[in-house]
Amino acid sequence: MTTGQMIYDIAKRIFPICRSITGEGVRQTLAILKEYVPELEVFEVPSGTQVFDWTVPKEWNIKDAYIEDWNGRKIVDFKENNLHALGYSLPMDTYLSLDELKKIVYTQKEQPEVIPYVTSYYVERSGFCMSQNQLDSLKEGTYHAVIDSDLKEGFMTYAQVILPGKSDKEIFFSTYICHPSMGNNECSGPALQTVLINYVKNMPEREFTYRFVFLPETIGSIAYLSRNHKELKEKVYAGFNLSCVGDDRDYSFIETRYANTITDRLLKHILRRHTSHFSEYSFLERGSDERQYNAPGIDLPVCGFCRTKFGRYPEYHTSSDDLNVISTAGFEGSFDIMTKCIKVLENNHYYQIKVLCEPQLGKRGLYPTISQKGSYDTIKNMTNFIAYADGKNTLLEIAEIIDADALELIEVAKKLCESGLMDYE
Amino acid sequence: MTTGQMIYDIAKRIFPICRSITGEGVRQTLAILKEYVPELEVFEVPSGTQVFDWTVPKEWNIKDAYIEDWNGRKIVDFKENNLHALGYSLPMDTYLSLDELKKIVYTQKEQPEVIPYVTSYYVERSGFCMSQNQLDSLKEGTYHAVIDSDLKEGFMTYAQVILPGKSDKEIFFSTYICHPSMGNNECSGPALQTVLINYVKNMPEREFTYRFVFLPETIGSIAYLSRNHKELKEKVYAGFNLSCVGDDRDYSFIETRYANTITDRLLKHILRRHTSHFSEYSFLERGSDERQYNAPGIDLPVCGFCRTKFGRYPEYHTSSDDLNVISTAGFEGSFDIMTKCIKVLENNHYYQIKVLCEPQLGKRGLYPTISQKGSYDTIKNMTNFIAYADGKNTLLEIAEIIDADALELIEVAKKLCESGLMDYE
Amino acid sequence: MTTGQMIYDIAKRIFPICRSITGEGVRQTLAILKEYVPELEVFEVPSGTQVFDWTVPKEWNIKDAYIEDWNGRKIVDFKENNLHALGYSLPMDTYLSLDELKKIVYTQKEQPEVIPYVTSYYVERSGFCMSQNQLDSLKEGTYHAVIDSDLKEGFMTYAQVILPGKSDKEIFFSTYICHPSMGNNECSGPALQTVLINYVKNMPEREFTYRFVFLPETIGSIAYLSRNHKELKEKVYAGFNLSCVGDDRDYSFIETRYANTITDRLLKHILRRHTSHFSEYSFLERGSDERQYNAPGIDLPVCGFCRTKFGRYPEYHTSSDDLNVISTAGFEGSFDIMTKCIKVLENNHYYQIKVLCEPQLGKRGLYPTISQKGSYDTIKNMTNFIAYADGKNTLLEIAEIIDADALELIEVAKKLCESGLMDYE
Repeated sequence: MTTGQMIYDIAKRIFPICRSITGEGVRQTLAILKEYVPELEVFEVPSGTQVFDWTVPKEWNIKDAYIEDWNGRKIVDFKENNLHALGYSLPMDTYLSLDELKKIVYTQKEQPEVIPYVTSYYVERSGFCMSQNQLDSLKEGTYHAVIDSDLKEGFMTYAQVILPGKSDKEIFFSTYICHPSMGNNECSGPALQTVLINYVKNMPEREFTYRFVFLPETIGSIAYLSRNHKELKEKVYAGFNLSCVGDDRDYSFIETRYANTITDRLLKHILRRHTSHFSEYSFLERGSDERQYNAPGIDLPVCGFCRTKFGRYPEYHTSSDDLNVISTAGFEGSFDIMTKCIKVLENNHYYQIKVLCEPQLGKRGLYPTISQKGSYDTIKNMTNFIAYADGKNTLLEIAEIIDADALELIEVAKKLCESGLMDYE
Repeated sequence: MTTGQMIYDIAKRIFPICRSITGEGVRQTLAILKEYVPELEVFEVPSGTQVFDWTVPKEWNIKDAYIEDWNGRKIVDFKENNLHALGYSLPMDTYLSLDELKKIVYTQKEQPEVIPYVTSYYVERSGFCMSQNQLDSLKEGTYHAVIDSDLKEGFMTYAQVILPGKSDKEIFFSTYICHPSMGNNECSGPALQTVLINYVKNMPEREFTYRFVFLPETIGSIAYLSRNHKELKEKVYAGFNLSCVGDDRDYSFIETRYANTITDRLLKHILRRHTSHFSEYSFLERGSDERQYNAPGIDLPVCGFCRTKFGRYPEYHTSSDDLNVISTAGFEGSFDIMTKCIKVLENNHYYQIKVLCEPQLGKRGLYPTISQKGSYDTIKNMTNFIAYADGKNTLLEIAEIIDADALELIEVAKKLCESGLMDYE
Repeated sequence: MTTGQMIYDIAKRIFPICRSITGEGVRQTLAILKEYVPELEVFEVPSGTQVFDWTVPKEWNIKDAYIEDWNGRKIVDFKENNLHALGYSLPMDTYLSLDELKKIVYTQKEQPEVIPYVTSYYVERSGFCMSQNQLDSLKEGTYHAVIDSDLKEGFMTYAQVILPGKSDKEIFFSTYICHPSMGNNECSGPALQTVLINYVKNMPEREFTYRFVFLPETIGSIAYLSRNHKELKEKVYAGFNLSCVGDDRDYSFIETRYANTITDRLLKHILRRHTSHFSEYSFLERGSDERQYNAPGIDLPVCGFCRTKFGRYPEYHTSSDDLNVISTAGFEGSFDIMTKCIKVLENNHYYQIKVLCEPQLGKRGLYPTISQKGSYDTIKNMTNFIAYADGKNTLLEIAEIIDADALELIEVAKKLCESGLMDYE
């Protein structure tokens, strides 16, 4: 089975669950992921906990929601599509005229055929979502609107996996688990991250420690940072927020706040050399948890990584973002870029040539012994690597200076270190 | 009456006066301006005073000047246009052949229809200015050339207004009062500055102290700096040299010596967003008192501000630069840009968000409580402002980073400070 | 006789000699150059000397080399073209079938009509070079291959000239003397450098000390640096590696490793203003001894200077690079650029205006005493020079800021210093 297929299958398993920022949906999702990653540790934060400027909300659970017409015919049904319930809806069971109903129905006017994804986490409401077309087709009459939910003191749930390496410096990955049944903008992230964890676990050795978190977006990352930000600030060397990583239309990343971290440079380098097209978004285009990781005073080197960025594809935050939007090819591409990033990070040392002037590569079998027009070109990457291995440049910086692929330079660096000519710290 | 009209009227009142770098013309001009600004303080510097590398020259005054032909017909008459007298001409009363006359007549060959503005401040001469066309039409004969002037020990005159604010850091404005009857390149600057002084005086509160000076160009600013440069260097936060601010064809500014001050950034920001076209000139294009304010060792953050820059419009330094070149619309535009600059400067603090991670704007009524695709965009300026309010950026720097209008951000900053989420120093 | 002709004549005299990285060819070449430059000091480094990562090889000398066919007809003859012998060939005298012969013959397949220049310095071989066309035309038969060479303990030879100046800071020139009979890629460099030495010797005074070295490429510069690198690092202010300086098709320079030295800036400035076309190559395009001078830890501000860069013209490293490739016009151009560089370097001080505000140039005869529209432009270079002579900019930096020719600014700077207004360190 291909890696893309493995990731797709996980996404498909967690797709049907109705998640929100709290509640059983999150726990069910994490339980499935734990089947693949036994190391997953689950944490519960009580409702009412103050996390920086925010308060963890009550826990919300929902069993059913529907609207029946006067004939008892269900015109919208949570069991068919959990987007029909406004996120965090209070329970209701009431009869409404069409006009009254319209006041609690949310649609996406400019996309009249889709059910939009709408929430009201911090102001208590009840409501339904449906397509504008359906709303327009509703006739006068009495509707029976039922929401079987509850909102009460409970917990917000998140999970973490830490895989230690030689250094306690960390590579950080984050994704979110708070959206109901949508494919790219939800299920893709946790599915990819699950397979990445296993990839990292199986690496023969790890320079870095790896930390992976699965959080409800915004409130989850804020709660996580309120508990861990000092440790993260001290340890995180590079980081990625995974979102919308399952479609097959583009590759994207969102720069950090000042676009000046190792993660920015790395993603740009890898995407430029290993995709046919990619989009680089400034931090002004942010929208997921990179917002928190980059907040003033938090300042983590975390970029958003996406295939097509949230908000930039038409199905985003609607019922159209289903299992057809994501694909094995889409996941394969994301997995490929993330593992290439990991490979470069693991070797991104400050290299230092140990001799003055050019070393004599010929006597070490690293240079042609016949010198003729053109013979110098055959080992250009090696001689160029040496020229900039002055202890001031990382592998990635050298790759950029000498216009070479950092992944290829890993091999060059290894040869030079094995020959005793080079060292690194 | 519009502000543009008020400024135009002042320019019109001072237009007829024959000013030079010293003499009664300067005093008469300042006396008129003092009618509008009673705070105006006038200073007199004695002839012979050493000011850095220069010496304040003798005081020059002129009552009349003309050339009569052999029929007693005045062919040029100072009373009709004071540009006819070469600036700083010594007295003369003599009869000259056409050839002799030509040696003391100045014209602008490439603009044969205008009387040029010409001076000889530091070498004693007598002379007349006329159009090339007139000179070409003169017939052989004996001409009677009369200049009723005197040049003797006296004073050089300048004026200053200081309006104190909360801080003793200053916003500095300078303009010049040494040219005879020309509209844009002379009268526009003092007229605009006079109305700006009243604008600043009437501001409900002032963060900064404001200093306005009216000086003879070059020798006046050098004399002023020789007395005040240490104080200015310590206090001036931003500054403007006002010249040619009355026409309606362009907006321009002249960068400081290294184009790296707050004033450069501010003018560029405001002109880019609030004019349909503007010109940014490097310091190599300087010509007015920005030359002295930016000299090595003086180093004040003073840009030149103009509508169409001196030397860049055809009427410049000729009799064509009359009251038709300037207009109420031209002045209205200059006043608008200068007051916008003042507004931004008054609010150009280093802002600092007071919570870690994004604040919860919703509970403060600053964010939509329903979260749906697109809802985040409605408060983009606010969330972006917060993202960069890390204590390292001024309002203007944030405006540039987040591509927003600094004037609009003033309101955003106020809301955030009032909500208690933000602070500044 | 023009300077171009003088240089050409030297190149022509040394062209016939069979040079290699060691041996009599180098000594003969230096002996000729010493006729022009009696100050030339010759140094000998014994075979086996460890120089950084390298070992000075045995000394190689060759008297003759040829291949005879079965009729005793010489089909290649070292005496006709010394490129026919593979550089550093061991002696041989043997009979070979065509197939056996082919194993020791080197050609340049993509240029079938030329004899390539090939060497095997560090692996012992015997071999011949010929054109691909000739090789293809050879018939089956028995060939007699003779090389009358020897390879034994001896010396590697190089030379140096030091011309002291007021300062012990140095301008450094390097060129190489290790290629057999080729015009542009060998003889041009030593010939130009020889005439440059005499130019510098005859300068009325020298701010800088000048050091000129003639070295075998790579092993020679490495040996030289192993003896002198600390001194050079301390003293060298700017430097040039001269290679391929005799043709007339382009001007080129190769940037230093980080393209950030005075030499980079100088060559760019002079070439931009004094040639109709030039090529700026990054350090990734290096190939001559700039490789060693810029190696990590050596870090000398040495650029490569060429007319058409090695590897960029078709005759490079083949028998076509003969005396027709170089020309008096080509040398004239190189000499002109190098002497312009020297002139700027000699005056590249940090200038400092000694008065605050603009000086009064008029009273010193440096400014028109009549002030009229346009009069300011006539001395723009001078006023601009003064504006940036704040003690933080060299002459060359000022030239770039004010967009003026550094050579013209030398005169401006002299006038200002003579007037007492300016100083430098």
